Amino acid sequence: MAVMRLGHVKLRVLSIDDAIDHYTNTLGLLETHRDSDGSVYLKGWDEWDKYSVVLSPSDRAGLEHVAFKVEKDAELDAYRSRIEARGIKVMELKPGALPFCGRALRFLLPSEHEFFLYAEKDFVGKAVGALNPEPWPDGLKGAGVHWLDHVMLMCEVDPARGMNKVAENVAFFRDVLDFGLSEQVLAGPEGDVQAAAWMFCTTTPHDIAFGAGPRGGLHHISFFLEDWSDILKTADILAKRRVKVDVTPQRHGITRGATTYFFDPSGNRNETFAGLGYLTQKDMPTITWNEEHLWRGIFYHSGDIVGDFLGVYT
Amino acid sequence: MAVMRLGHVKLRVLSIDDAIDHYTNTLGLLETHRDSDGSVYLKGWDEWDKYSVVLSPSDRAGLEHVAFKVEKDAELDAYRSRIEARGIKVMELKPGALPFCGRALRFLLPSEHEFFLYAEKDFVGKAVGALNPEPWPDGLKGAGVHWLDHVMLMCEVDPARGMNKVAENVAFFRDVLDFGLSEQVLAGPEGDVQAAAWMFCTTTPHDIAFGAGPRGGLHHISFFLEDWSDILKTADILAKRRVKVDVTPQRHGITRGATTYFFDPSGNRNETFAGLGYLTQKDMPTITWNEEHLWRGIFYHSGDIVGDFLGVYT
Amino acid sequence: MAVMRLGHVKLRVLSIDDAIDHYTNTLGLLETHRDSDGSVYLKGWDEWDKYSVVLSPSDRAGLEHVAFKVEKDAELDAYRSRIEARGIKVMELKPGALPFCGRALRFLLPSEHEFFLYAEKDFVGKAVGALNPEPWPDGLKGAGVHWLDHVMLMCEVDPARGMNKVAENVAFFRDVLDFGLSEQVLAGPEGDVQAAAWMFCTTTPHDIAFGAGPRGGLHHISFFLEDWSDILKTADILAKRRVKVDVTPQRHGITRGATTYFFDPSGNRNETFAGLGYLTQKDMPTITWNEEHLWRGIFYHSGDIVGDFLGVYT
Amino acid sequence: MAVMRLGHVKLRVLSIDDAIDHYTNTLGLLETHRDSDGSVYLKGWDEWDKYSVVLSPSDRAGLEHVAFKVEKDAELDAYRSRIEARGIKVMELKPGALPFCGRALRFLLPSEHEFFLYAEKDFVGKAVGALNPEPWPDGLKGAGVHWLDHVMLMCEVDPARGMNKVAENVAFFRDVLDFGLSEQVLAGPEGDVQAAAWMFCTTTPHDIAFGAGPRGGLHHISFFLEDWSDILKTADILAKRRVKVDVTPQRHGITRGATTYFFDPSGNRNETFAGLGYLTQKDMPTITWNEEHLWRGIFYHSGDIVGDFLGVYT
Repeated sequence: MAVMRLGHVKLRVLSIDDAIDHYTNTLGLLETHRDSDGSVYLKGWDEWDKYSVVLSPSDRAGLEHVAFKVEKDAELDAYRSRIEARGIKVMELKPGALPFCGRALRFLLPSEHEFFLYAEKDFVGKAVGALNPEPWPDGLKGAGVHWLDHVMLMCEVDPARGMNKVAENVAFFRDVLDFGLSEQVLAGPEGDVQAAAWMFCTTTPHDIAFGAGPRGGLHHISFFLEDWSDILKTADILAKRRVKVDVTPQRHGITRGATTYFFDPSGNRNETFAGLGYLTQKDMPTITWNEEHLWRGIFYHSGDIVGDFLGVYT
Repeated sequence: MAVMRLGHVKLRVLSIDDAIDHYTNTLGLLETHRDSDGSVYLKGWDEWDKYSVVLSPSDRAGLEHVAFKVEKDAELDAYRSRIEARGIKVMELKPGALPFCGRALRFLLPSEHEFFLYAEKDFVGKAVGALNPEPWPDGLKGAGVHWLDHVMLMCEVDPARGMNKVAENVAFFRDVLDFGLSEQVLAGPEGDVQAAAWMFCTTTPHDIAFGAGPRGGLHHISFFLEDWSDILKTADILAKRRVKVDVTPQRHGITRGATTYFFDPSGNRNETFAGLGYLTQKDMPTITWNEEHLWRGIFYHSGDIVGDFLGVYT
Repeated sequence: MAVMRLGHVKLRVLSIDDAIDHYTNTLGLLETHRDSDGSVYLKGWDEWDKYSVVLSPSDRAGLEHVAFKVEKDAELDAYRSRIEARGIKVMELKPGALPFCGRALRFLLPSEHEFFLYAEKDFVGKAVGALNPEPWPDGLKGAGVHWLDHVMLMCEVDPARGMNKVAENVAFFRDVLDFGLSEQVLAGPEGDVQAAAWMFCTTTPHDIAFGAGPRGGLHHISFFLEDWSDILKTADILAKRRVKVDVTPQRHGITRGATTYFFDPSGNRNETFAGLGYLTQKDMPTITWNEEHLWRGIFYHSGDIVGDFLGVYT
Repeated sequence: MAVMRLGHVKLRVLSIDDAIDHYTNTLGLLETHRDSDGSVYLKGWDEWDKYSVVLSPSDRAGLEHVAFKVEKDAELDAYRSRIEARGIKVMELKPGALPFCGRALRFLLPSEHEFFLYAEKDFVGKAVGALNPEPWPDGLKGAGVHWLDHVMLMCEVDPARGMNKVAENVAFFRDVLDFGLSEQVLAGPEGDVQAAAWMFCTTTPHDIAFGAGPRGGLHHISFFLEDWSDILKTADILAKRRVKVDVTPQRHGITRGATTYFFDPSGNRNETFAGLGYLTQKDMPTITWNEEHLWRGIFYHSGDIVGDFLGVYT
């Protein structure tokens, strides 16, 4: 029994046309469906399920929900019991309620983000197929991202009120969903406030991350690139397409990954991320960053605040 | 309950001094222990357990055994039942019998390779530590490989006698150890003989692989590098150190990874491998290669036999 | 007064359609003109003159001629005097005789290859223009090579008869055209036969090279790529397009460059070449390779013969 | 007759020990001499002359002088005539006055920077030698820069007073020293003020550059790296060694090169620069950047001011 991966995110966007242009021509996602309500479904060329990103027209940007895929349908019952035992109310949706998916569990994370678990989603296949495949498909657009890699959620933390939804989310994902904790930031006067955390269900550096903020929200969604060369190519493409770059190419101390941050036309932060040699396992010791090293952890090369990286989110 | 990863390989080497020089100065492994019987224990800088490679002096090269690490000690009992239910005899070793490890299960794979499962091994830590770590340590030697990535075993296949130990191993790892099958070669006149297979317990392209041969043996052990640039650096180092290169840098069609093959001084084949954007999951459709595409699968750029890649092994 | 660069090569090809497909869709050259006699003119996206490759239909493959561009028209008179003083007959062609070029000098190298010098060629401009340019253009095809980088000519060498046209060419380019000698192979029983030479007029590793063979001919023409990552991408594209690869990605000891060799559909050898940190200057000491190190010089990673690299040419 | 290359820069540094540590352990230059007056001479591993950087203890940072090397000693007389014909006073230094050099011409550029031309400097050789060399030497430290690549001088520009020393320098290098102009910025209300210029005597993107400022000075000295991967490694090393990074890795629009800027311990700005496919030639059309595209030209990915990049210099 295992949560396999981040299945999809549903995003609110201000202009669906601008958003489609961004996610397909800049990032290189492929459109796989368009709903009657105007929502658009997209996948990376290297993903096999029908979609990993849903764009939904709205009058404000932000995250509608996050959904993770579990291995088998029967596991949903076990997860439901576990979640409810945690005192969290679970709603079970029948097949198709989450489009193209089997039955799904809907609940709120401790941080109040809407969250789904499902076991089945329509299969489309990788763009290169599964029979004598080429290593990459012709005709990719923009950055040609492989897949949706992870999502970072902003969670309310207010030590004065004893509130730390980062820590609550970490405990939930660890105890209920069997995630591992790869890295964490311990901050505050006593150095004991869990101010950010990176967690995994795969063996990549992280599948979901949580950061402390004055309110809940979405910090960024991140797409996988192969390596540092693709980071350069992507930054070039962002510049060519006049996409607002938030953070130019550099290395994270946390996760060691190479990164570029930018915004979609609605202001949702995107990342393109390339892992640079880092394998998580349940027995890997959690890496801890103290507050004084925080910025070196976030941006290893700058070693300093870049823009309003922590303050701006949707 | 899960098998986490390839824990270590124990190799037979003809000259322990030459072997140490090779594995430390060319590959960059770190020596962590030397036994009274002359065996030497090594780990990659990015591994946290005490060793992933054991070099053991012998009068012939080859593989002594392969060991995988499971998540929890209690799981060993469950795996023991499963393995015995398969009709395979299991010997349980008490803690320390496998050096620096907890109790271990010893048994033979269907291919007759000696195999261990264990849950605990002495912890040493990554060279960069777990508190505000640098992304890589100073003073790395040679290729500076991160970790032992996977092992490929040669397995007897003789369709005339109805013998296919590749297929038997695949079934064993799938049914008993819950591995996934990322890729396979189907060969023979009817295209239905499973002549090679790549299997995973992590979300990397493979943790173990099996290839058909006239006799059982070791095809290669493989070490992880970050990317294509490290493949170049490593090939340069091999050339500088006059290490016999078996296959110069190129891409595998199978797993998409970048590779260089070479031999240790005893003739055991080594690989340095960099994954190039490939994430396995239990629901990823298995990729199949037909015999006519086999060499494009093995060496995507050559698209052809390179040397005696399939015939030479220890 | 200076020879600036390799201006163009004129190649004979067996099928003009196959050749155009190869040079445009695999290499990414851009067609700029088609002659009434069926010749096709091509340039790299990063070149500003009208063409650097001419493909000419013929019943046999090979090199028709090589042309270098000098800085100023008046220099042609000075070069003519120098060449004739060397005892070489020069024919002066009026403007347009070499298509889209000003007047040109035509003569035979000591190795009997047909050679031109010209000072003017129609200007087309880089694909990115010269006003606030992007770093690379959209819509590149295949490898997207930047420019024609160098050409290697095979020259008759027969020490028994005291004939060494490699050495004669070297002397000619050094004394008459002011080229520098970056590297050379000294072979033979006494280690004093100049068996290959790399020469430059720019500050790149070489603009022209000469190798010893039983007969004159073309060893390869080479196109510039940015770096080792582009070498991988190009090798992938060659494999995807089923182009026969002669030598998979590796490093040259000579020039240190990264290389992939392959053949055009007529059998003319192509190279894609990325310089890896090497700047020539007139006062750089010439690098010498002895025969015993020759193959390490040619293919640093293999350190050995690859296929029939020296024996097959057009 | 030709100016070959930037031969060396002499820098003033506040602490010679800190400077030596920086230039040898962070950049990887090799010390070749130490003067009785405390000056230290350094070269890159890939340079053959005795030094390319001189560090001189002082109570203020900055540039002492810049020296270029010409091809032959006799050319110095011709250059002297040309320079004097320009109305610039030339002092001829006898051999050894410029340490380890032959006779030298000393004069002030129109921008009043002290400038030398010389034809001879003691030969030391590349660290890899010139006989069957390896592609790179063992034991490199830090970034392992290949050579001093270029220097950028700040020049007084005050359109109100009709003063433009950028333009004066450009004219001098073009007319007197035969440099080409690869790129320029045209600014001001009429878009006709040459506010920055990049010039070459090799076929690299630039050997010297000029930028407009309120006073003359040194903007940066730049060292050559092979490619984008070395830019990452260097940025990692800067972070590991806690060197203040001014601009994290990104691409220049101007020259297309990849860059990282940082400061030596005295506050002199350094750059590590990797060319990314760009060959200059005398007939290459000069690239022009308008003021509105200036920042995209300087930092292509940011497309915006980074820190006080133009205002801070020594």
